Amino acid sequence: MTSDTVLREIYDFALELGQNAGQMLFEAAQKRMSGELQLDEVEKLNSVDIVTQTDEEVEAFIRQSILEKYPDHNFVGEESYSKGSSKDYLIDDSPTWCIDPLDGTVNFAHLSPFYCVSIAFLLDSQPVIGIVCAPFLHQTFSALRNHGAWLNGTTRLPLQHNPVPPLPPQAPKGCIFSCEWGKDRRDIPDGNLARKVETFVNLATELGGREGKGGMVHGVRSLGSATLDLCYVAMGGFDIWWEGGCWEWDVAAGICLLQEAGGLVTTANPPEDMDSAPVPPVKLGGRLYLAIRAVGDSEGETGKQAQERVVREVWRRVRRLDYERPGA
Amino acid sequence: MTSDTVLREIYDFALELGQNAGQMLFEAAQKRMSGELQLDEVEKLNSVDIVTQTDEEVEAFIRQSILEKYPDHNFVGEESYSKGSSKDYLIDDSPTWCIDPLDGTVNFAHLSPFYCVSIAFLLDSQPVIGIVCAPFLHQTFSALRNHGAWLNGTTRLPLQHNPVPPLPPQAPKGCIFSCEWGKDRRDIPDGNLARKVETFVNLATELGGREGKGGMVHGVRSLGSATLDLCYVAMGGFDIWWEGGCWEWDVAAGICLLQEAGGLVTTANPPEDMDSAPVPPVKLGGRLYLAIRAVGDSEGETGKQAQERVVREVWRRVRRLDYERPGA
Repeated sequence: MTSDTVLREIYDFALELGQNAGQMLFEAAQKRMSGELQLDEVEKLNSVDIVTQTDEEVEAFIRQSILEKYPDHNFVGEESYSKGSSKDYLIDDSPTWCIDPLDGTVNFAHLSPFYCVSIAFLLDSQPVIGIVCAPFLHQTFSALRNHGAWLNGTTRLPLQHNPVPPLPPQAPKGCIFSCEWGKDRRDIPDGNLARKVETFVNLATELGGREGKGGMVHGVRSLGSATLDLCYVAMGGFDIWWEGGCWEWDVAAGICLLQEAGGLVTTANPPEDMDSAPVPPVKLGGRLYLAIRAVGDSEGETGKQAQERVVREVWRRVRRLDYERPGA
Repeated sequence: MTSDTVLREIYDFALELGQNAGQMLFEAAQKRMSGELQLDEVEKLNSVDIVTQTDEEVEAFIRQSILEKYPDHNFVGEESYSKGSSKDYLIDDSPTWCIDPLDGTVNFAHLSPFYCVSIAFLLDSQPVIGIVCAPFLHQTFSALRNHGAWLNGTTRLPLQHNPVPPLPPQAPKGCIFSCEWGKDRRDIPDGNLARKVETFVNLATELGGREGKGGMVHGVRSLGSATLDLCYVAMGGFDIWWEGGCWEWDVAAGICLLQEAGGLVTTANPPEDMDSAPVPPVKLGGRLYLAIRAVGDSEGETGKQAQERVVREVWRRVRRLDYERPGA
C-alpha cells in the first residue's frame, strides 16, 4: 500500500521529470529549426510508423531518472518495449512506470505542434499519476489520483467546471468527435482503415442519414496524437474520442487525466448486447478505447447516465475494429 | 500606390488590433470557464454552422477600430457579410480589410484550443498583410508583403528554413495532409461530403491501393479551423492543405502568411488537363483551395517545381468539389 504522502512525492518527481523531458523535445525541435540537427528517423512497421533518435534519447533519460530514484519500480517504455520480440501485455500489480517519450512522432518529424511526452505511474494496474507535456503548445497536463487534473498547474480540468455542462440531448449531435486515421493503411475490404472511415462518416453525416446511423457531430478532429486527444477530452474541448490500435504507453497518463477530470473511458468495440450490457471499464492494454468528457447532471439524468447514453449512441454507429493483444 | 512606410504603419496597427481581438476571445473563453458567461450561439445554415455573441462583439470592435483609423478603407467581415442577402464577392482593387473575428467557432463553443481571429489587409485584391492570433495556443502569426512571415514576432516561418527541406520524392507519401470535414453533411450520393471522404481515403491509403490513387500520406489532420490549417502549412508543420467551402475571410490572412513563408496556394479542383495545365494562382473568393508548404531546392528540381509536382499528385487523387460563388 502506497500512502498519499508517498504518492504525492512520486507525483512531484513525475511532474518535474515530464517538464524536463518536454524541454528535451523542445530543444531537439529548436536544433532542427536552426539546422543544427538533422532528423534521424527509422521505419518500424511501415513508412508511417517511425522512431527518431529523439524518441530514444528521451526514453533513456526518463528511464535512467526513474532507475536512480525508484530502483524497485518496474518500467514499460515504448521504445525499449518495441525492441523486444513479445507483444505481450507486461503490466502487473507492481508499482510501474508506463511512458511514451514522444507521442505524435510523425508530427514531431514535421515540426507540427502536436507532440508530447507521456508519463504514467501505476499501482495495482491502475494509472494513479498522469503527466503529459506538449512543449510547443505550452501545455502541461497533470493528474494525481483523488486530487484532480490540471492544465499548467493552476487551471482545473475540465475547463468548464462551474458547472460542468451537460451533453446535448441528441448527442453525438452537437459533440466534437476526435479520432485518428492510424498506421494501418492497407487497401483491403473491411480492413481497419475501411472500418474506421465508415465510422467517421457515420458520425459526421446528418441525423437520419446513413440508414439511421448519421450522428451530425459538431466537428471531426484528428491531431495525430492519441495522448493529446485524451488530454483534450479531459479539458472538455473534445466530447468524444474513439480509437483502436494504440498501446498502453499512448493512453496510460491520458486515462488518469481523463478520469481525474470526471471523464469516462471504455472500449471502442461494442458488446453484443450493446443496449443493455454494462459499460465495461477500459482495459489499459486492450488497444480499443472510447472516451467521453466529464458531464454535469441535468434534469432527469445524472452525468454518468448521460456519459453511458452517449457511449451507447457511439457504439450504435461504429464498426468493430480488429486489433489483437495477447495477455491484455 | 501605397508606400512601404505606410504599409508598415498599417501592419503595426493590424498586429496590435489582432492581439487585442485575440485577448477579447481569450477573456470571453475565461468567463465561460468560470461560469460568468454562458454560451449564446445561433445557428446559421445548420447545427454545425453557428455564430456566437463573441463573434459579433469582436467583429464590431475590429470594424470600429479600423473605421476610426482608416475611414476610407473598405471592410469585409464574416458576420456583417453573412447578414447581407448577397453571396457576391465584394472585394475590389480598393484598400480593403477582410476579417474573420472568430475562425473555428465550433471549437470556441466547446473551448477546444483551435480558434483564432484573422485579419487581412488587401491592395489591388491581393492580401499584403496577414495577422492571425490564436490566444489559447499562445500563437500569433504575422506577415507583411516582402518582409516574411513570423510566429510570435521573432520566429521566422517556415520553422525549418536553414535550409528549407525538400518534399519527399514519392510525395504525397511522407507528407502531412490537412483537411476539414466541413459543414455540408447531407447524405446524398456524390455530394460534397462523399467527395471529400473519397479524397481523404485516397490520400491515406497505401501506395498502389485505391486503383493507383493511394497516397500513403504520413498523417491526416483536421483542426476545425481553415485559418489555422493555413498557418500550420506556413509553419511547415503541415505539408498539404486541401479544402472547399470556406470563404475569403477564412483564408485571406492565411494566404498572405503562406505566400510570405514561401508556400504555394492554388485551387482544390484540378483543371481538365491537370498534367500539363499551368498551376493557376488561387482565387481568393473561389472557395476552393490547395496549399503546399515552402520547399527547398534539391538536386535536379527547384522548390517551385517540387510544389507544382505535388499539386498535380494531389489533383490526381481528389474529387472535384461543388461550391458555387458568383463574381469571384
